[in-house]
Amino acid sequence: MNRVYLDWNATAPLRREAREAMLGATEIVGNPSSVHAEGRAAKSAMERAREEIATALGAEGQDVIFTSGATEAAALILAGRDLVCSAIEHEAVLAWCRRELATDGAGRVNVPDPAGSALQLANSETGVIQDLPEGLAVSDLTQAFGKIPFAFNWLGIQAGFVAAQKLGGPRGVGALVIRRGTEIESRIKGGGQEQGRRAGTENLIGIMGFAAAARAAQNDLDQGIGEKVSEMRDSLMATLESGAEMVTFPGRESRRLPNTLSILTPGWRGETQVMQMDLAGFAISAGSACSSGKVRPSSVLTAMGIAPELAGDAIRVSIGPETDGRDVARFAEAWLAAHARWRQRNDQRATAGRV
Amino acid sequence: MNRVYLDWNATAPLRREAREAMLGATEIVGNPSSVHAEGRAAKSAMERAREEIATALGAEGQDVIFTSGATEAAALILAGRDLVCSAIEHEAVLAWCRRELATDGAGRVNVPDPAGSALQLANSETGVIQDLPEGLAVSDLTQAFGKIPFAFNWLGIQAGFVAAQKLGGPRGVGALVIRRGTEIESRIKGGGQEQGRRAGTENLIGIMGFAAAARAAQNDLDQGIGEKVSEMRDSLMATLESGAEMVTFPGRESRRLPNTLSILTPGWRGETQVMQMDLAGFAISAGSACSSGKVRPSSVLTAMGIAPELAGDAIRVSIGPETDGRDVARFAEAWLAAHARWRQRNDQRATAGRV
Repeated sequence: MNRVYLDWNATAPLRREAREAMLGATEIVGNPSSVHAEGRAAKSAMERAREEIATALGAEGQDVIFTSGATEAAALILAGRDLVCSAIEHEAVLAWCRRELATDGAGRVNVPDPAGSALQLANSETGVIQDLPEGLAVSDLTQAFGKIPFAFNWLGIQAGFVAAQKLGGPRGVGALVIRRGTEIESRIKGGGQEQGRRAGTENLIGIMGFAAAARAAQNDLDQGIGEKVSEMRDSLMATLESGAEMVTFPGRESRRLPNTLSILTPGWRGETQVMQMDLAGFAISAGSACSSGKVRPSSVLTAMGIAPELAGDAIRVSIGPETDGRDVARFAEAWLAAHARWRQRNDQRATAGRV
Repeated sequence: MNRVYLDWNATAPLRREAREAMLGATEIVGNPSSVHAEGRAAKSAMERAREEIATALGAEGQDVIFTSGATEAAALILAGRDLVCSAIEHEAVLAWCRRELATDGAGRVNVPDPAGSALQLANSETGVIQDLPEGLAVSDLTQAFGKIPFAFNWLGIQAGFVAAQKLGGPRGVGALVIRRGTEIESRIKGGGQEQGRRAGTENLIGIMGFAAAARAAQNDLDQGIGEKVSEMRDSLMATLESGAEMVTFPGRESRRLPNTLSILTPGWRGETQVMQMDLAGFAISAGSACSSGKVRPSSVLTAMGIAPELAGDAIRVSIGPETDGRDVARFAEAWLAAHARWRQRNDQRATAGRV
């Protein structure tokens, strides 16, 4: 049976362009910090990749600092700064911030003090996009990068960070992007790499895959991929809505990423749905993947005012440029069938209870 | 002209086995933290890689924590512990330790308080191997791993760290290995990965390349590659010694890595030698690569009692399993020719000075 992968917000499949770039990069021998010809070739390939990622981000190369992912980049820019944030942030941000910002029922966050706050550009579970306030200290751009057009230099924020794996690059590569002059205290020390802001030999193969993926994602965006993707997502939403009466879609009234759908069915555990759909051949998720298999009620949904006992009843479907509309339709069919079985069991239990 | 790469201690060429494993890994779609089939497949591939690396290290998989390289692993185990070390350590260690341990002229370090100290197993510039004292807190195993046989579980130390790129894996992947029960305070937070000791989606492609390279290096060692490599190194040393009277080889009286030769020619700048050899087609180095092109007198050599004005006159030649003995002979020839020209210029200047 063909598997259908609908969990792009956890990790997007590696893009063909990224794979080819990484294959090419395996031929580059040197350490980018070495002064000989091999080292200079490695350095030059890395700096070209940095420029490409900067271009896709709408920033300048010298303001891009490579890291091992968004989680490390978050630590690099957030640790010791005591910023405030909302509970809808990713755990990599929550680890360093005070959860003092309120979120409304549509998933939007109000930021009274931008210079002392962190706010994501888009949410991984609901896809809700925030209007970032001018002067914001830090934004997690991870889920937005490659899915909606933006330019770091026009966002009016001090710093942001991204991960390659969310737009079709490899896992374990990311970047911090800063407004020129932002002070960065390095946390990994002992080498002059990344202008002294992040020591350690760079993940050259991963970085070149990241650059190729960023460029390809940018091309996709320029060619209007967002519209195609959001049509598939909206069609899925309409199908589920017409076939399952109690279902809701948290964040639907807000501007959202084109590829993300949060689906809440009161009383039907998200975890159960993920397992049933997995057995049926579909990979989806019940919240963020980053807790290593642990499933907890989503703090994103509770922050939006959904009761904790219901917040565990959501799943997330996230698709991408290569998703086939027929696969999405097959998912809708399988999910509605499982939903009907669940309703039936529920009704039987209710009837049995009444006897 | 064919280039000859003699800078394996900076970055070893990617092994064929690593390249193939990475290529295979590009087909694995999931996030290792996702619960669906794709996520479990990614997790399972990662755990197999962890076991292979643990086996090569002589440790158990559950004691291996993946990082973005040795530099990050050093920060993870050293930050905030205030250990003492010697000046021969890599900068990634020096960044966190007090340089209070003395080094003798043979490059050997005395460690009065092992539980409060860090000591490398082998030096990147001279190749000198240390006898690690029982109960040592931390050892930088980076240059030794894959070049000499050792088993972490038999070293009697609390923690060690390694990098993939030094034994033919990719740049930007490494591991910390700890004795069971060692407390680790995570520095990159916000996810349950690596048993909560290091958050962030893992660099799966890099990790699988690391595992394949570690296994291949282990096979090479089992088949006695060290002897072949040290014969090439010793033959180079003998040729240079017989052709250049003032040359010395720091650390030669100690047990050394089989592949490393430090070559000191009083009065001839290492930096100049690196550039001349680079133009002649040979990649060598003048110390550690990790200062991004900056060339400074080696703190390794000054710690061994070599005068600062001479410590800048050393180069490092480091070879590997795939080095061709004829290329090493060509290097010796080219270096001796450059050395003769340098002597001649020196003699002319001396003569001119006497006029």
